[in-house]
Amino acid sequence: MNALRIYVDFASSPGALELLRDGTRGHPLLFPGTPASSMLSAPVRDPQFATADIAFGQPDPQAVAEAGRLKWIHISSSGITRYDNPRFRALMAERKIAVSNSAAVYNEACAVHVLSFMLAQARSLPCALGSRAANGSDAWHALRGTVSTLRGETVLIVGFGAIGRRLAELLGPFGMKVSAFRRKARGDEPVPVIAQDQLLSALQTADHVVNILPDSSETRHFFEAGRLAAIKPGAIFYNIGRGTTVNQEALSDALRSGRLKAAWLDVTEPEPLPDNHPLRSAPNCFITPHIAGGYIGEARSLVCHFLHNLQRFVRGEPLLDRVM
Amino acid sequence: MNALRIYVDFASSPGALELLRDGTRGHPLLFPGTPASSMLSAPVRDPQFATADIAFGQPDPQAVAEAGRLKWIHISSSGITRYDNPRFRALMAERKIAVSNSAAVYNEACAVHVLSFMLAQARSLPCALGSRAANGSDAWHALRGTVSTLRGETVLIVGFGAIGRRLAELLGPFGMKVSAFRRKARGDEPVPVIAQDQLLSALQTADHVVNILPDSSETRHFFEAGRLAAIKPGAIFYNIGRGTTVNQEALSDALRSGRLKAAWLDVTEPEPLPDNHPLRSAPNCFITPHIAGGYIGEARSLVCHFLHNLQRFVRGEPLLDRVM
Repeated sequence: MNALRIYVDFASSPGALELLRDGTRGHPLLFPGTPASSMLSAPVRDPQFATADIAFGQPDPQAVAEAGRLKWIHISSSGITRYDNPRFRALMAERKIAVSNSAAVYNEACAVHVLSFMLAQARSLPCALGSRAANGSDAWHALRGTVSTLRGETVLIVGFGAIGRRLAELLGPFGMKVSAFRRKARGDEPVPVIAQDQLLSALQTADHVVNILPDSSETRHFFEAGRLAAIKPGAIFYNIGRGTTVNQEALSDALRSGRLKAAWLDVTEPEPLPDNHPLRSAPNCFITPHIAGGYIGEARSLVCHFLHNLQRFVRGEPLLDRVM
Repeated sequence: MNALRIYVDFASSPGALELLRDGTRGHPLLFPGTPASSMLSAPVRDPQFATADIAFGQPDPQAVAEAGRLKWIHISSSGITRYDNPRFRALMAERKIAVSNSAAVYNEACAVHVLSFMLAQARSLPCALGSRAANGSDAWHALRGTVSTLRGETVLIVGFGAIGRRLAELLGPFGMKVSAFRRKARGDEPVPVIAQDQLLSALQTADHVVNILPDSSETRHFFEAGRLAAIKPGAIFYNIGRGTTVNQEALSDALRSGRLKAAWLDVTEPEPLPDNHPLRSAPNCFITPHIAGGYIGEARSLVCHFLHNLQRFVRGEPLLDRVM
């Protein structure tokens, strides 16, 4: 087996790095002088990069263009915004560089995070955890009258990839009506897929609209004012895709007018939102700071996924989570 | 069919009352002068009660003893503390009065409420919803490093009736290790049942201890200091059974010492807890005001369950949720 020079630049942990060193014996690892602080931090230029066969992390697209030996890029995030453009795709095709991402590492956590949002809303936790209402009081009846079991309610999952599929599995026992919208239906989806021309009517009937769209030029402001206005009054909007897919001013207006009952967002544009952003003071707008994909052991899973793909790469087998 | 006089005393809604009137045509309904304000409110004595064949609600045990015609009591709650004592049971047996409760009405909501607690804790929502941590910052890594997907974690459900069974179903897709403790195992439980002499070791290994015990003389302070101290350090304790089943001072101590990571309680003793109660200021103690069984349409479901049982009673069929 030829030694492969692997350029490694992702936010890691000592345990995960040890796992990586163990799993890549015989292949030199190249590290930048300044390690990445998070999956989404901007890459720093490093002359070593030009000598790498493989890049694991978030390589600078410009550096990729100049790296003559590169054969495979394994992106350490699920989102691939930095690379997802026609020019980069054409370059990868021309140079025969395979690109895979780490979607499998984050799917489960993202789906669980959405469900935590749905259940916190269904059980009115933001309100109930602060309540000292006495059993039988008006305040207690008012609170108890707002909670639900989700049974019989309708969910529309917008952007139905691996996260949506996992969410549909988690929702399985709840007795909900789940449907999905995706730009290119494959026919193997476990729930009904809404066609483009049914999207507005699907938004009009869903109690829960779960946005898992990635960021790209096609998805930018996918939820613009018109689509947000189409959502059924009293519905709840969730976003764990990317903040750029939503017109946030229109979302804020929909919350302020009371048309939307609540919004639960793990992603915003920018992150974090400035203190004076309208969504910060919009009623029933609940924001977590882009942690949906996180979990204890995440860095180790990320390395395991890469090592799994490295074995496949060495053997010439198809890569997991290949995106280009 | 003989007309049955039905004494009705439960916290209702206009829609549910209409449903009750519709479903009981031919049977006179007797209402108290002062209707109950909640499922758990103390009953008020009413001379009409002595003339009833059926009581639906929360009848006064003393009035039951004096009501010569009574044949069936349908309790409007899941808990039956007020009636669950040897003297009352003996009276019911002697007088051949059937007693059923409304467990089926609340199981689903209670199970969903526990899962909302488990997921809010797993995703660190109480902390994350207030966080404005920037991607990649130390605060962000600290937060993201605390969240989990529940996968591989261990749950011990203490008090394994219909709620526990439903919770086990909801937890099905999460990849957790679920086991149960119940005083009398039936052999048809869908998860492994822990024997009495294994309880302490089960508490020592569970990441999540879910207490669904009802209130009775046998369950009072079931979670006393010794059992609470046996729980694995860093575990999370949940209570949606009854507050009386826990030594709350010992629970507060376990939270203050940091031995327990968190407690999520829908029930306390008393309810609501006074403002100066130690649990109010204990770290990571999250309390909702006895709403676990609640959901939109609850009063209608309660009536449906009673009407279903009324049909069975009239036909001489076995009652659903019969408890005596």
